[in-house]
Amino acid sequence: MLDLDGLDFTKGHGLVTVVAQDARTGDVLMVAHADREALERTLATGEMHYRSRTRGLWHKGATSGNTQRVVALRADCDGDTVLARVEKAGPACHSGDESCFGPGRWDGLAALDATLADRAARALAPDEKPGYT
Amino acid sequence: MLDLDGLDFTKGHGLVTVVAQDARTGDVLMVAHADREALERTLATGEMHYRSRTRGLWHKGATSGNTQRVVALRADCDGDTVLARVEKAGPACHSGDESCFGPGRWDGLAALDATLADRAARALAPDEKPGYT
Repeated sequence: MLDLDGLDFTKGHGLVTVVAQDARTGDVLMVAHADREALERTLATGEMHYRSRTRGLWHKGATSGNTQRVVALRADCDGDTVLARVEKAGPACHSGDESCFGPGRWDGLAALDATLADRAARALAPDEKPGYT
Repeated sequence: MLDLDGLDFTKGHGLVTVVAQDARTGDVLMVAHADREALERTLATGEMHYRSRTRGLWHKGATSGNTQRVVALRADCDGDTVLARVEKAGPACHSGDESCFGPGRWDGLAALDATLADRAARALAPDEKPGYT
């Protein structure tokens, strides 16, 4: 899936940049770093592990439950960045947002879908005008 | 569109990480870096500028023609990474690939579409069996 020996850890002083992307929606979820050990754990467990400069080896979701299951891992052309396509069990960001870049482009559609389902499920009150969402 | 004063350039020694994403397909195209000047030029021109550790200030596509027009710029939760949604004028990677992570997930569909159009446009030879793509 990913050849660790093909990665260039030297430019990042032992780390590569990791971009986590939602495999279902295409949303970019977060950008973090990993060393060889974090990637070995990722390959062994099928769940994303990172290396935080402050927290050390970090199994994403170990405490929050918001794990990221690996769908695909791919290195970039010069081997210093890994693109991880993942299925996330919950919000990717510690802020509670679905991604660290705020709402994803599909979140708006999901919210609209929920609104439509809610409107469809309940009858209008006698004095209520229909809405247009 | 993007508040440069809200970015944290300190962790990256004057640089932030930039993830360029195809605004149309969602494919992650490349990961590079930018300093304040590169982002100012990006905002002023509407085309992606990066700061390369080796090449200095870099107007993407200035020589290759493969520019990236800015659709949206968004900082991540801690301000050290920028997600750039772009429309690309050509392949993002110096290798000629559409992205630095190899073929995008939509490239396969585009290839299939081209095959189907080609098959539909020509008649079968008398001794030719129909294919299933």
